[in-house]
Amino acid sequence: MSMIAQPVAPEPTPRSLPSRTVAVAEGDGIGPEITAAVLSILRAADPTLGFEPVVVGLKAYESGAMAGFGADLMQAITRHGVLLKGPITTPQGGGFKSVNVSLRKTLGLYANLRPCVAYHPFVQTLHPGIDVVIVRENEEDTYAGIEHRQSNEVYQCLKLITRPGCERIIRYAFEYARAHGRRKVTCMTKDNIMKLTDGLFHKVFDEFAPLYPDIATEHMIIDIGTAKMAVSPERFDVVVTLNLYGDILSDVAAEVAGSIGLAPSSNVGQTCAMFEAVHGSAPDIAGQDIANPSGMLLSAVMMLVHLGRGAPATRIHNAWLRTLEDGLHTADIFREGSARCVGTREFADAVIARLDQRPERLAAVDYPAQDPESLVHPTADAMPCRVATKQLVGVDVFLNWDQPGRDANDLGARMEALAGPQFRLSLITNRGVKVYPDGLPQTLCTDHWRCRFPAAGEDSATPYAIAALLVRIAEAGLDAVKTENLYTFDGERGYSQAQGE
Amino acid sequence: MSMIAQPVAPEPTPRSLPSRTVAVAEGDGIGPEITAAVLSILRAADPTLGFEPVVVGLKAYESGAMAGFGADLMQAITRHGVLLKGPITTPQGGGFKSVNVSLRKTLGLYANLRPCVAYHPFVQTLHPGIDVVIVRENEEDTYAGIEHRQSNEVYQCLKLITRPGCERIIRYAFEYARAHGRRKVTCMTKDNIMKLTDGLFHKVFDEFAPLYPDIATEHMIIDIGTAKMAVSPERFDVVVTLNLYGDILSDVAAEVAGSIGLAPSSNVGQTCAMFEAVHGSAPDIAGQDIANPSGMLLSAVMMLVHLGRGAPATRIHNAWLRTLEDGLHTADIFREGSARCVGTREFADAVIARLDQRPERLAAVDYPAQDPESLVHPTADAMPCRVATKQLVGVDVFLNWDQPGRDANDLGARMEALAGPQFRLSLITNRGVKVYPDGLPQTLCTDHWRCRFPAAGEDSATPYAIAALLVRIAEAGLDAVKTENLYTFDGERGYSQAQGE
Repeated sequence: MSMIAQPVAPEPTPRSLPSRTVAVAEGDGIGPEITAAVLSILRAADPTLGFEPVVVGLKAYESGAMAGFGADLMQAITRHGVLLKGPITTPQGGGFKSVNVSLRKTLGLYANLRPCVAYHPFVQTLHPGIDVVIVRENEEDTYAGIEHRQSNEVYQCLKLITRPGCERIIRYAFEYARAHGRRKVTCMTKDNIMKLTDGLFHKVFDEFAPLYPDIATEHMIIDIGTAKMAVSPERFDVVVTLNLYGDILSDVAAEVAGSIGLAPSSNVGQTCAMFEAVHGSAPDIAGQDIANPSGMLLSAVMMLVHLGRGAPATRIHNAWLRTLEDGLHTADIFREGSARCVGTREFADAVIARLDQRPERLAAVDYPAQDPESLVHPTADAMPCRVATKQLVGVDVFLNWDQPGRDANDLGARMEALAGPQFRLSLITNRGVKVYPDGLPQTLCTDHWRCRFPAAGEDSATPYAIAALLVRIAEAGLDAVKTENLYTFDGERGYSQAQGE
Repeated sequence: MSMIAQPVAPEPTPRSLPSRTVAVAEGDGIGPEITAAVLSILRAADPTLGFEPVVVGLKAYESGAMAGFGADLMQAITRHGVLLKGPITTPQGGGFKSVNVSLRKTLGLYANLRPCVAYHPFVQTLHPGIDVVIVRENEEDTYAGIEHRQSNEVYQCLKLITRPGCERIIRYAFEYARAHGRRKVTCMTKDNIMKLTDGLFHKVFDEFAPLYPDIATEHMIIDIGTAKMAVSPERFDVVVTLNLYGDILSDVAAEVAGSIGLAPSSNVGQTCAMFEAVHGSAPDIAGQDIANPSGMLLSAVMMLVHLGRGAPATRIHNAWLRTLEDGLHTADIFREGSARCVGTREFADAVIARLDQRPERLAAVDYPAQDPESLVHPTADAMPCRVATKQLVGVDVFLNWDQPGRDANDLGARMEALAGPQFRLSLITNRGVKVYPDGLPQTLCTDHWRCRFPAAGEDSATPYAIAALLVRIAEAGLDAVKTENLYTFDGERGYSQAQGE
């Protein structure tokens, strides 16, 4: 492999791009040195891009900002719409919150993108063909963080899935696929079990798919899908999935690609976006000029593409690929066959020296200089949401009940008597399993019982009837810990039935 | 590789075991032929084991049993405590329920075990060293199947995690590890996000670990853990995890082992257990005598061990390993290097012919003839559950509110006015993100709002006060769709705080 950089297909001198400023946070640990390296490359490739430094991470925590950033960061990101962020060290304990979780939630960064690519044979991998982008919903699911302990024994977390949330992440996945010349979008859910919540995600996917006839679509159950990602990731292109599944799946994809140290990511919202490497702040090697700036550099490339600055993005990405090919490797990926082990600074200089070159063996990239607005606001023309007619048809009342023996028939008899004229008791479940009427002795009964009260008559379920039911339950000395109203929407049942119902 | 079976370390003639009958369901597709093969091997190795045939699957569905089995199966499994089950074809649509989900729920089969083993070099695998058992909680989590649509836009699934549920699966994992000479149990959760629910699972794991000082323990976050299972499964031994994570993780482990067609599984409860292959009913190759009976055979081995019949389990398992080594392979694993491609029947005969042999290259097994009761009832002496003092300290009321503009400040003002003397409004969140007071314009607001009402005074939160609050909300024309009471337990907050609370 030649050590001397030979221009292969020289790029035309880029026409001047409009001036633009982005917020940059160098972060902790190796953050400052990799940020310096990345900015030097950006300055060389995109001279009209400016940077506003902002503070995030340890310095912010130490100055009392529990979220790891202060008002200046919020102002900068709101002003510029974009943050390029170095890795952060979150202090342990003491109520410090993760910067990413805080930013994601407060700025509405609903899409988390993780491209996972193998750079075979220059970086070791079990799956040379992998080139996949995971598009993970970033705000909903069990990550909304709504948990309640309801009895001595039972803890609950709410999984919330919304139609607008599904629409914008799925729309984003399709728009991303189209803008990047991707051919297929795979949707992964567990809708064979969670028919309402995951079912909604799958349904919205099926609604949007026809709007993108140029893109192939498929759906997989998440368990099989993740397993296939582990053993044959080459079969995937773009994958869109719910928050929790995407969390697991993107780590699997990054590991099997073998390039987690090189992996970039973005968190994209309606009005702003944040770009950062997947790796951490590695304080053990900080300040030694040996860290690999590639993850943050490729994140910066994603940022340029997001901003519609396709020309410098293409130059940097191809120069970086050529540097890998030329065997100039930082210590983390240096191995037999590498030409030379270089430091952070020298690696950046090598990329700058190759800004007019393209890779010879790895696939070169060519980002279009698209209108960034088409990607940043994919939901501007979301599906019109038909408002369904909602009707209250009953209520599930959850009890904390721990009478000795925990005999569901005892509880059933008491609740039958309390149903009143507006309701009837249709069943009691314990952890979702029917225990009344006709329960089975094998069922483990915790101290947490769901009593289902359908309306006895057409219009007898009202908020007042529910409040009165709660009063009767309290007067009987029973402990209702929560309620879930039962509704139909356009006449269709809006709640799951219990086993045997 | 020798084609002639040479006894290497002949087993002593097994002493006669007590008579025992198990229920057997042959299932659909290839089920009948692999069941016949497996029973012939069981008869040869364990003559005092009897079989009661039961109907499950298509024949049961066709006779009107929507769950895929009838009362006869329930009676047989209750009588014998054990079911060996062939693969089932679940008819599509029409309300047919999965046999496994139905059996699991009604019989309380709380532990799903999936051993994943590589048989290198006789069966192809990327990870020759994998030998892991996934112990998956089988009843709780989002799989309790409690879902409610609450507004035009928002759907909810409850994730329920209980202390007794955590205790028995974790106890089972440790007991299993000890009984099978395993050295390490890894617990996987996402308790950095779900601090109450997943936090409970992790906490119970940490409580039980000291009772098993002979077994090493570790905890991993499920995203990293699943990724490590994909690329370095050799580092794991026994893994215990929650239902959803276990569903994904066990498919990943089975795929990377490369032997999903050979993989057995068990579903174990307090009083009964079910054993079956992981693979499906493969109707396309049914009746041709080419199916591989190994998955069901290894499931039968797990059943024998579960019943304390270690001697025949050892004989069968070693004979099966020797058959693999001898290159007698069914079509699914036949390849260059195999000695001969054999049919279902011939494969079974080959195993029977080797019942006094042990493998020469693969690791032989030696199951102890343990007391089965120690495994079947691991929770008999569960941790004493201290009853905490619960105090009602407020309520979260969830509203469906879709006034034009969806201005949280409007809603906040209205709810402040409705709080009454017993409560105060502390905040409103939308999908878990605080939108009142001091919301941010970037937050996407759905039509679903959580209003948190802490008690205004020490004892002012009562069930009656909550019912009265609901009445005031209804009178104001607002639509409360659910409530979640807020409690402390022994003075400790039993609910998550919102971002910024």
